Amino acid sequence: MNSSGVGLVDTKKVTFAHPPDELVLESGSRIGPITVAYETYGELNEKGDNAILVLHALTGDAHAAGKNSPEDRKPGWWDPMVGRGRALDTDKYFIICSNVLGGCSGTTGPASMNPATGKPYGMDFPIVTIRDMVNVQKKLLDHLGVKSVVTALGGSMGGMQSFEWAVMYPEMVRSVIPIASPVQLSAQGIAYNEVQRQAIIQDPDWKEGNYYGTPGPQKGLALARMIGTITYKSDEAWNIKFGRTFGSLLKKDYYVFDSRFEVENYLHYQGKKLVRRFDANSYLYLTKAMDLYDLSRYRGDSLVEVLERIMCKILLIGIRTDFLYPPYMQKEVVKILRRLGKDASYRELNSPYGHDAFLIEFDMLTRIIKGFLSEIEKEDKDVGEKFRRDINGSKSYKNRPAGLGYCRYRGS
Amino acid sequence: MNSSGVGLVDTKKVTFAHPPDELVLESGSRIGPITVAYETYGELNEKGDNAILVLHALTGDAHAAGKNSPEDRKPGWWDPMVGRGRALDTDKYFIICSNVLGGCSGTTGPASMNPATGKPYGMDFPIVTIRDMVNVQKKLLDHLGVKSVVTALGGSMGGMQSFEWAVMYPEMVRSVIPIASPVQLSAQGIAYNEVQRQAIIQDPDWKEGNYYGTPGPQKGLALARMIGTITYKSDEAWNIKFGRTFGSLLKKDYYVFDSRFEVENYLHYQGKKLVRRFDANSYLYLTKAMDLYDLSRYRGDSLVEVLERIMCKILLIGIRTDFLYPPYMQKEVVKILRRLGKDASYRELNSPYGHDAFLIEFDMLTRIIKGFLSEIEKEDKDVGEKFRRDINGSKSYKNRPAGLGYCRYRGS
Repeated sequence: MNSSGVGLVDTKKVTFAHPPDELVLESGSRIGPITVAYETYGELNEKGDNAILVLHALTGDAHAAGKNSPEDRKPGWWDPMVGRGRALDTDKYFIICSNVLGGCSGTTGPASMNPATGKPYGMDFPIVTIRDMVNVQKKLLDHLGVKSVVTALGGSMGGMQSFEWAVMYPEMVRSVIPIASPVQLSAQGIAYNEVQRQAIIQDPDWKEGNYYGTPGPQKGLALARMIGTITYKSDEAWNIKFGRTFGSLLKKDYYVFDSRFEVENYLHYQGKKLVRRFDANSYLYLTKAMDLYDLSRYRGDSLVEVLERIMCKILLIGIRTDFLYPPYMQKEVVKILRRLGKDASYRELNSPYGHDAFLIEFDMLTRIIKGFLSEIEKEDKDVGEKFRRDINGSKSYKNRPAGLGYCRYRGS
Repeated sequence: MNSSGVGLVDTKKVTFAHPPDELVLESGSRIGPITVAYETYGELNEKGDNAILVLHALTGDAHAAGKNSPEDRKPGWWDPMVGRGRALDTDKYFIICSNVLGGCSGTTGPASMNPATGKPYGMDFPIVTIRDMVNVQKKLLDHLGVKSVVTALGGSMGGMQSFEWAVMYPEMVRSVIPIASPVQLSAQGIAYNEVQRQAIIQDPDWKEGNYYGTPGPQKGLALARMIGTITYKSDEAWNIKFGRTFGSLLKKDYYVFDSRFEVENYLHYQGKKLVRRFDANSYLYLTKAMDLYDLSRYRGDSLVEVLERIMCKILLIGIRTDFLYPPYMQKEVVKILRRLGKDASYRELNSPYGHDAFLIEFDMLTRIIKGFLSEIEKEDKDVGEKFRRDINGSKSYKNRPAGLGYCRYRGS
């Protein structure tokens, strides 16, 4: 089947005014008004139940697919996944991607104006969590008229949001696909985030976060990104991509301090590139949100208890060479979910590219996600028929065990 | 068998005056005079052939064992390995450990006085390589009257030096034991080093390296160490040690920006601790030396060609959870060495502690290294007897293939 991209798209914005639409954050703080930047691809059907929610990672944004202008050199960050005939098929689904709360690409974040002062929030921005991000997405979905989500999916921090969706709004999501994502950030994950934050904080141009109107902590943010970039790749990926290729062919350069191997040039390039498009304070707040991410927090005594709450179909995707959130983390969760009788499955990307593979291995992802969505389609159809038969036969549907297609009809 | 430590030891110094004792570096630069700080444990025998060379890692020093004063809270960095009845038995061996060239614990490095200016070298210090470090160690061994080294061993950067010893002075070393060390730094290794260097360089207190007489780039060096510390541990180690333990029991602290998990507290502690004892410019030069480390550089067309030159017994030790220089690197080398008919073996520390395990798993290391050294003892004895028989029988010993005990008698 031929596939095609979504072409030109606009990033839209909606503002939830305050009061009454302020948001109570997990911390208890209140924030408002909240503006959300989002894009949509495809059309919402009449029932409002063909939505797919794409959830972005740390430095992602609402622009998942297509181009915002014909001059754009590159399309959105998950473009090969979205369009006619693609894994997220715009002929079937209404696909939504929004910038997270705390971000810097249109949604309210530390660089936004603080209505209390008329100046950018900076470090007065409240601590936000993955749960807060999901609550803002829920507001957006309600605003768009979405009644039911076929799947909520994303990689890394996007996967964390998808886990929270499954727990926070079980009646609304029929499936989730967390990719390369843990159910709580590991100590190592926190450690990597902290050194990245320190890189920013130690830059004197950070000025306690009050750098708006100045170039800001460019060196610190670039260094943070350089560190992050190492964690997004893998030893194997670096060997394939660069090995020990030296940045210059001149032998005399070898023994000077500022000589560089290609891998160093690449890191510096990635660092500088991020500085042009990302706000340093957002980097601080979003990495902090990831640190605080723990699906089980204040939800009972154990991870098992919270996983018991998941009612929808769930596909976990791990990446063989991901050492940031390694596959064992996802496999462990699937094991527990299955023991609990949930409809959970695990697939692994056999990729050398490390954590970043969810932004690279589009063919693998397409095969897996297409297959998964067609299962849901089939199950929806089967369950729909069974449901009609049951209703006609006046049987109780209430005690149906959690499983295939259950979520969609919960409470209906 | 009861074992005991080496007790009180002095760090000694020797200076190789210039001229005529200046050192020609791998780069072609000349440097002198060179002072070397070193410690020795046990006694050199009459033949001068019972020496063991302990080689330290990035932030190590000459003080491998014992205490320098009764008030010292901790003994040297490899203390449990050195002493009567220990793996490196002071009853049998004359053990030497010296601070590397470019270091900051007594041996000439960037903080030393540049005789040309009367001021500290700073960034005028020439680029040094692992080979240069080995050449300085060779000078020290000659100075001490050592004729033959039973084994040269060390972890990480120490292992790199041991590999170079095997290639540079095959007539002098009867065995080497590289621990958690590659034969060339990987792209990922270079990447991690570069972000650590950038942490230092971006600190305004670094002042292009001319910070002597001031507190220097304390924040930058601490951050470099924090990053390094992550790479020395492992996901598994962090899970065991800290998990998601929060640095404070107060729930209200959870949602503030400067809250910290225990793993973050630990990183900050490690960062600050290094600052008290290490020179930032040395950190730059030594990580650079590691980047440039490639056993095969300018030694023929391939790694196989250079490994062919290794004549001595070689034991490579890998660490299961080392993701900085993972076990596959060592296994690959052993595979090639064996194919070449060398006396190479591989042992793995089944440790959760990551790269740092060579500074932690003393029981495992003791078992492995004791066994290896007793093999050498036995082989020395056997070969000595065979040699005497051969000499008496007037047979040529020249074409004996590389193998057990060969090195010791090469050229004799």
